[in-house]
Amino acid sequence: MSNRKDGFVMNQFYNPSKLTWKNLIQRPTFTLDDYQVLVNEVFENVKNHGDEALLNYAKQFDKFELKEFAVNDSEISKAIRNIPKNLRKAIKNAKDNIHAFHKAQKTNRIKVETQEGVVCWQEKLPIEKIGLYIPSGSAPLFSTILMLATPATIAGCEEIILCSPPNSYGKIPDEVLFTASLCGIDKIFKIGGIQAIAAMTFGTESIPKVYKIFGPGNQYVTSAKQFATRYSVSIDMPAGPSELLVAADETADPDFVASDLLSQAEHGPDSQVVLVSTKKDFVEKVNKSISYQIDELQRNDIVKKALLNSKAIIFDNDKSAVDFINEYSPEHYIICVKNEDYYIKNVKNAGSVFIGNYTPESAGDYASGTNHTLPTNGYSKQYSGVNLDSFTKSVTFQKISKKGIQLLGETIELMANAEGLQAHKNAVSIRLKKLENEK
Amino acid sequence: MSNRKDGFVMNQFYNPSKLTWKNLIQRPTFTLDDYQVLVNEVFENVKNHGDEALLNYAKQFDKFELKEFAVNDSEISKAIRNIPKNLRKAIKNAKDNIHAFHKAQKTNRIKVETQEGVVCWQEKLPIEKIGLYIPSGSAPLFSTILMLATPATIAGCEEIILCSPPNSYGKIPDEVLFTASLCGIDKIFKIGGIQAIAAMTFGTESIPKVYKIFGPGNQYVTSAKQFATRYSVSIDMPAGPSELLVAADETADPDFVASDLLSQAEHGPDSQVVLVSTKKDFVEKVNKSISYQIDELQRNDIVKKALLNSKAIIFDNDKSAVDFINEYSPEHYIICVKNEDYYIKNVKNAGSVFIGNYTPESAGDYASGTNHTLPTNGYSKQYSGVNLDSFTKSVTFQKISKKGIQLLGETIELMANAEGLQAHKNAVSIRLKKLENEK
Repeated sequence: MSNRKDGFVMNQFYNPSKLTWKNLIQRPTFTLDDYQVLVNEVFENVKNHGDEALLNYAKQFDKFELKEFAVNDSEISKAIRNIPKNLRKAIKNAKDNIHAFHKAQKTNRIKVETQEGVVCWQEKLPIEKIGLYIPSGSAPLFSTILMLATPATIAGCEEIILCSPPNSYGKIPDEVLFTASLCGIDKIFKIGGIQAIAAMTFGTESIPKVYKIFGPGNQYVTSAKQFATRYSVSIDMPAGPSELLVAADETADPDFVASDLLSQAEHGPDSQVVLVSTKKDFVEKVNKSISYQIDELQRNDIVKKALLNSKAIIFDNDKSAVDFINEYSPEHYIICVKNEDYYIKNVKNAGSVFIGNYTPESAGDYASGTNHTLPTNGYSKQYSGVNLDSFTKSVTFQKISKKGIQLLGETIELMANAEGLQAHKNAVSIRLKKLENEK
Repeated sequence: MSNRKDGFVMNQFYNPSKLTWKNLIQRPTFTLDDYQVLVNEVFENVKNHGDEALLNYAKQFDKFELKEFAVNDSEISKAIRNIPKNLRKAIKNAKDNIHAFHKAQKTNRIKVETQEGVVCWQEKLPIEKIGLYIPSGSAPLFSTILMLATPATIAGCEEIILCSPPNSYGKIPDEVLFTASLCGIDKIFKIGGIQAIAAMTFGTESIPKVYKIFGPGNQYVTSAKQFATRYSVSIDMPAGPSELLVAADETADPDFVASDLLSQAEHGPDSQVVLVSTKKDFVEKVNKSISYQIDELQRNDIVKKALLNSKAIIFDNDKSAVDFINEYSPEHYIICVKNEDYYIKNVKNAGSVFIGNYTPESAGDYASGTNHTLPTNGYSKQYSGVNLDSFTKSVTFQKISKKGIQLLGETIELMANAEGLQAHKNAVSIRLKKLENEK
């Protein structure tokens, strides 16, 4: 994007050859190695000194002397009272939609008699203890609580805790406390950064240990989450800067597309903003609309930085466009084209897909029902966004009858023998022999 | 386990207090840090020099000068001819059962109109490119191919490749080639160790890059898989030594239980073997049967080493037993007790559960239909065993109508505003305004 007299234009590429795609889909390089020493130090300290370490870090990093980590009931009641009625209604509306969509993802027990007397089944059991990390900063990101606590509750997780850094008055924003309370979370702790992740990993006197940690954060938190996986904790997914790819043509409204690209650019200077089109004219219109809309935005300094790396890629046919998009594997993907069915049918890699002129990304970010915790950085090639299954693990069961083992036994014996595992074979043979003797 | 005149006994614990559980559930400590320097070096080399690096490592580590990595058709045909008819039938039997159980795990598209005009759906899309690693060594572990390739094919993965180290004659065992071929895998490469994982991570002239790597391996391979996750590749799960916990009482046959414990012990000296019972007499009987069976086993040197760390834990009630087992979170869990329903109903954490006297672990290891790639080391608290979903990612879609955005719009605007994300709000406002003007 360069600043021209007539406004901003995105960096344009025409029918880029496949050889250049590798560069075009490149995300900002981003290494967590720089944080390893610090993260390791904080983890060791929290592991060995528990709450005492946490209190010291709160003083050191958050410049605040905490008396207690846990948010108390009166703080929560006060927060609830402080939320304006219309915002309260909005958050409830969003929660209902998120609940409806995630509840529908429940799967029943799957039971199969694979052969006579051999019954196998699969059940999804809740992860007992989970931790949510909600970052603070310029604004309270309460929407993420809806996205994580709602499915966690549907899944039946027994213990859900929430950690969030307090502001300089030692408070967690009202919106965060209200939303947490609405979702039934009553274990809320004023603690942020690496030390929060370490506390949830090991447990301290005040903060319970959890089995899986969810939620976004800055590079310190991201690095700490990655590090936590060394200590029998799992995490929702690896994180990177947020992304939006819009595929649009003359059937799309350029003002809408511009507004969507801008909404993505507002996340941060490293946000990825990509427009793919088969229509050069349309791209021009979007550029114009961006120029027109951008100056109205409060965060336009961030937006302008992000747009410096934005790309408008023009292909002369839908197939190349779709192939490129699958290579890119966007986190958010808006489809607003004439040939809509073709684009939808050929989605191979994406976090969440938004279709048509009236489906802005912000609908999914907040309130339509889908989850907004999604794989970035090309990870939609192999990772799911957060969904109901993120809060469960699948466990298999089997029960074999006497007849069943008599019918299947020889198969197991032959295979175990061929793998050189004689004791495995013997566990079957000993049963078959006894059954033989019973006759 | 100590060697007494009258035979082996497992290390016994009576009603251990909850304070000691943390130690009792402890697995062998196991750090991958020792391999980091070597793994990093191999990854850099393979990344920068491709096939050339692979050929050098084959010479250095496998003591073999390869001409070509790919297994050719005539090698496969020969392997197929070499498999005895009864083993061939056994492998097909196992494959059919695994296919039946994993096919039943298919989920349909989930579609919900969360509120008027707001339609959201979830689809599971196959991970396009996956890599299977099959270790070699004393025996050909062909059963793992069934466990990975069968669900991968059902999921619809487009490209499935298999890497396995060649033996000292430059060959991959017939059983491995036969099973791969039976599963429709035609891209089989003679390459093992860290360099195989690096090759699948980056791709080389001969070996395609993949998005997710599955399969077991020694500590070098495990370390390399963990390392690979830094480079936009995911892996099936973190690995550790295999485990079996048997809960049994007087309704169980002590010979069967002994044979199951021995089959687990045969995996390796670090295998975890645990017996939980409410009946002291029963434990004595199992000890006796172990002493009796152990000397018959070919791998009894390994078995004896593993049994040195085995534990028999006696609780005086089922509740404590079940609570302990959930804390332990076993990979394999055999339930063979009077109070069977209670134990099953209260499974909170386990990889795979085997119920009753005629359901040995080896049934699930080979042929009943369930998967044998399971979370060890307590990871069944938060990780699933490999299942159909391991080969897919869940993607959400949404389409909102004009009416839909008019009804949901204000909710999004209010929430975006409260999070200080004005461009997110604007993406909705601009649409609502145009719709207002259309009237």
